[in-house]
Amino acid sequence: MVVKSQLKLIKSLHQKKNRIQHGLFIIEGEKGIADALANDLIPYKLLSSQVGSDITSFEKISEKEFSQISALKNPNGYLGVFNIPKQAALDFKDWVVVLDGLQDPGNLGTIIRLCDWFGIKQILCSPDTVDVYNPKVVQASMGSLTRVFVYYEPIIPLINRFNIPVYGTFMEGTPIQKIVFKTPGIIVFGNEGNGISTELSNHITEKISIYSHPASKAESLNVANAAAIVFYEMSR
Amino acid sequence: MVVKSQLKLIKSLHQKKNRIQHGLFIIEGEKGIADALANDLIPYKLLSSQVGSDITSFEKISEKEFSQISALKNPNGYLGVFNIPKQAALDFKDWVVVLDGLQDPGNLGTIIRLCDWFGIKQILCSPDTVDVYNPKVVQASMGSLTRVFVYYEPIIPLINRFNIPVYGTFMEGTPIQKIVFKTPGIIVFGNEGNGISTELSNHITEKISIYSHPASKAESLNVANAAAIVFYEMSR
Repeated sequence: MVVKSQLKLIKSLHQKKNRIQHGLFIIEGEKGIADALANDLIPYKLLSSQVGSDITSFEKISEKEFSQISALKNPNGYLGVFNIPKQAALDFKDWVVVLDGLQDPGNLGTIIRLCDWFGIKQILCSPDTVDVYNPKVVQASMGSLTRVFVYYEPIIPLINRFNIPVYGTFMEGTPIQKIVFKTPGIIVFGNEGNGISTELSNHITEKISIYSHPASKAESLNVANAAAIVFYEMSR
Repeated sequence: MVVKSQLKLIKSLHQKKNRIQHGLFIIEGEKGIADALANDLIPYKLLSSQVGSDITSFEKISEKEFSQISALKNPNGYLGVFNIPKQAALDFKDWVVVLDGLQDPGNLGTIIRLCDWFGIKQILCSPDTVDVYNPKVVQASMGSLTRVFVYYEPIIPLINRFNIPVYGTFMEGTPIQKIVFKTPGIIVFGNEGNGISTELSNHITEKISIYSHPASKAESLNVANAAAIVFYEMSR
């Protein structure tokens, strides 16, 4: 039985401050919820407006109630509320992806999915980056969120502690196919509009650029597409 | 002076059938509009709820009126209505990207932007692919739409006419770094959930796969990220 106050609590989790306060976040979609359970995330509530799910532990609510708690424009009828998991401490023994002020939830979710694909386990975000438990980030990560750790810390003090290469993409830089990627290493991607901040740029040891056609008038690549190409070349 | 019936017409362009009927589409954002004008697209109306734009030809409307015609959740105050341009006939003399039932407007827009970056001029979409003049596609293409031609035709009869290689991405296939890409050629990407249709799969002459980490549990790459990696490797 789900009571009104619980629906109100769940709806409040659309906002970051409430997610932090309650230590809870939302996953929508049957598959994402099944993934989270398979990865031992602890559910607080599993709710559905559908009948006939494989996961028997869903509580049934009405479509009207469901539309109140869903963060999606087109709700799919399955919503899980989970405890935000504790993460292992960040280390710099392998690749760490650094995101400097990313704002678009779809981009963060897609980069998490890419990291999962290419076996990268850790993402360090500047504190002004979009929140990883934003429902749109969770949605775009397509279940990969349960397998990639995402940290929020001021970046420069952290990377200053380690003497490892720091790669970053710029319009001008060494063509990426000529770069020898060395692990452990850090690879930085910047904000959608402004790129990597000037302050952080000074800490990049390897500036890399991605080929564009000589006649191209496109001004930039989408940051998640740039990440796809960099991760691919790192693994090539 | 913008009259009510014109605002109603513009709002109707959010829907494909009205775009086709009137031969008009919407571009939002000052930069995208400037790009379109620089690329000789013919404006029907340029409207703004802002003051102080560089482009003096905007007609001023109220914020309330603007929010009625904008297709964006967070309107940016600049909206251009343009004539849908005539395109040169599709040819198969260089790369043609084929999209088989893509549904997400953001993915189509991003792939247009990628084509522009990598110098690919032609995209052939199956008729069930999302419409290129959907305002969200236009938005995600970031101005590249004016430099890449997008066609809608049944795919198989067209590619059957030419004896050129047809590449497509699959979970199982030759690792992409071993592929020698030959132009003229066709490169196919499938629907977000279902991939390339069975019927079209039979026409793929080169099945290619993109490396994933052996321990990865990610099920797939986002289609625009897969396109980024393929276009990069084609140009490498």
